[in-house]
Amino acid sequence: MNSQHNFYNLVSNEILAVEALMRQQAKNNHFDLRVALDHLIHSGGKRIRPNITLLSGKLLNGDMERVVTLSSAIELLHTATLVHDDLIDGSLLRRGIPTLNAKWSPAATVLTGDFIFAKAAKLASDTDSIPVMRLFSETLGIIVNGEFTQLFASRGIVDRDEYYQRIYAKTASLFETSTKSAAILCDASLEDTAHLTKFGYELGIAFQIVDDILDFTGKQEDIGKPVGGDLRQGLVTLPALLFIKNNPKHPYLLEHLKENCLKFTSQVETLIQDIRNSEAIEGAFQIATQHINEGLLALKKLPESIYRNALEEIAYYVIERKL
Amino acid sequence: MNSQHNFYNLVSNEILAVEALMRQQAKNNHFDLRVALDHLIHSGGKRIRPNITLLSGKLLNGDMERVVTLSSAIELLHTATLVHDDLIDGSLLRRGIPTLNAKWSPAATVLTGDFIFAKAAKLASDTDSIPVMRLFSETLGIIVNGEFTQLFASRGIVDRDEYYQRIYAKTASLFETSTKSAAILCDASLEDTAHLTKFGYELGIAFQIVDDILDFTGKQEDIGKPVGGDLRQGLVTLPALLFIKNNPKHPYLLEHLKENCLKFTSQVETLIQDIRNSEAIEGAFQIATQHINEGLLALKKLPESIYRNALEEIAYYVIERKL
Repeated sequence: MNSQHNFYNLVSNEILAVEALMRQQAKNNHFDLRVALDHLIHSGGKRIRPNITLLSGKLLNGDMERVVTLSSAIELLHTATLVHDDLIDGSLLRRGIPTLNAKWSPAATVLTGDFIFAKAAKLASDTDSIPVMRLFSETLGIIVNGEFTQLFASRGIVDRDEYYQRIYAKTASLFETSTKSAAILCDASLEDTAHLTKFGYELGIAFQIVDDILDFTGKQEDIGKPVGGDLRQGLVTLPALLFIKNNPKHPYLLEHLKENCLKFTSQVETLIQDIRNSEAIEGAFQIATQHINEGLLALKKLPESIYRNALEEIAYYVIERKL
Repeated sequence: MNSQHNFYNLVSNEILAVEALMRQQAKNNHFDLRVALDHLIHSGGKRIRPNITLLSGKLLNGDMERVVTLSSAIELLHTATLVHDDLIDGSLLRRGIPTLNAKWSPAATVLTGDFIFAKAAKLASDTDSIPVMRLFSETLGIIVNGEFTQLFASRGIVDRDEYYQRIYAKTASLFETSTKSAAILCDASLEDTAHLTKFGYELGIAFQIVDDILDFTGKQEDIGKPVGGDLRQGLVTLPALLFIKNNPKHPYLLEHLKENCLKFTSQVETLIQDIRNSEAIEGAFQIATQHINEGLLALKKLPESIYRNALEEIAYYVIERKL
């Protein structure tokens, strides 16, 4: 998300304020905690969640100081879940940058995640809104329950419902909370809150579907991990679900999922290439686009403004992005 | 803390309500999360934190439904920190019962701790008090920063100030929050809030000093780990600090702390026995008793009632307990 995007320019000062506030949370704490938080903030991605929170706040003419606090809380919550995720998955790189657990012991990584959870909760309480605070902790519960479920889930073919539950917990819940909590904090009407909530939800679902597509179509150097990584781990995402539907007799797919690994690496590569070259990719894109359109429909019910336009632009960005 | 104690009888119904509310937090979540939470609640110790929160609430004539919610939040926060602590320390038993990490993978243990943090935060927000919510997240930050500091601390002799900082972060901060947050929730005057805060702080400091004494004087089967465990890990607690002061030329102590382990097990055993049989134990007890007396002095400034008496009884229990 670079400065050529209009939506970024509209809240670029606020994003800097968000990052400063995030960084500030470790001051007066152990030196290595400050270093860790700096590292995480420095390597910190597209800031799409604070962007939609900030633009929602602007759209609703809210108190931007409180919205900045809220956005920092949301981004820190996201950061903390990534720290524990990478530890659990044993991931050594995220966005091409070494993860915390690549450099530190599991103990230090667990505690750093915990510390960031604590500071996210602190910032959420600094918004001075009980409903925001409650939504915030509920969302964390949903995310963690989702990760836990995925950990214990038997690998293999899932149905579309299970897939949606998983990506709601993993991604859409926090996108939804990003717009909904801004609406709550800015005293939006119940209708406007519902529209923004819907927009956040659909954006999050589309975002995760595109992520799952990029896992097949991206270049290894861009996505920072081997192509087809989900399927290699036995995790069935939308492209694979659509592929199964269209190719129920594919020689490798069912075998791979049943055994949780194919005997020969070349078979896995063939399978991933077959999905990558199939119409399942385009099919998944169409479904992501439908979600974006649903989201835009909800957003259109809010008064037009440069901020609403910027949120629309983010929606298009989500399905057009290459990373 | 069994039913022969008056302080327990006064809030026994509320303690049951606290446990029920804690247990309820995993409903509608993954089956194994429910099992884990049940296991943790079942093996859950003396409930001293909810006891002092509940009695403070009764003493202040507060809305006990909200105080029960607060007490559940505090006990869950405590539980979550224990889950991650045991994982980090690799402890296989707590109170003689297998820890979560003894039975589960690190991944599942990390996520269970995270889930319990989320539910603790949810319950804290259910108290509908922003200052309580803020205090709660600040306390979590203090606890985690303390654990982190201990993880990275060079082993060896610490001074009394460092020891106090460590036991404040580890134990006294949450004791203090237990009484202070009850006072805030029950709209106590600033004076009464300060007195209860002081009582919680002193009680927590004394509690941890007694824990550190019991690490030397307890029986292995009672404390559930080898006697002198702290010192074996190079962790210097008050009894060892006092022993060093009185025995600066002890042949093994400095060597052990410098090398972080003695060459021969028999030397460690001798060292632990020497501390156990020294006047340092009585000295540490006297210091714990001074803290209890300070706490009681603060408590006495609140109006007399059966609840105040019960809090006094807990204070005496803390220095008299054998476990």
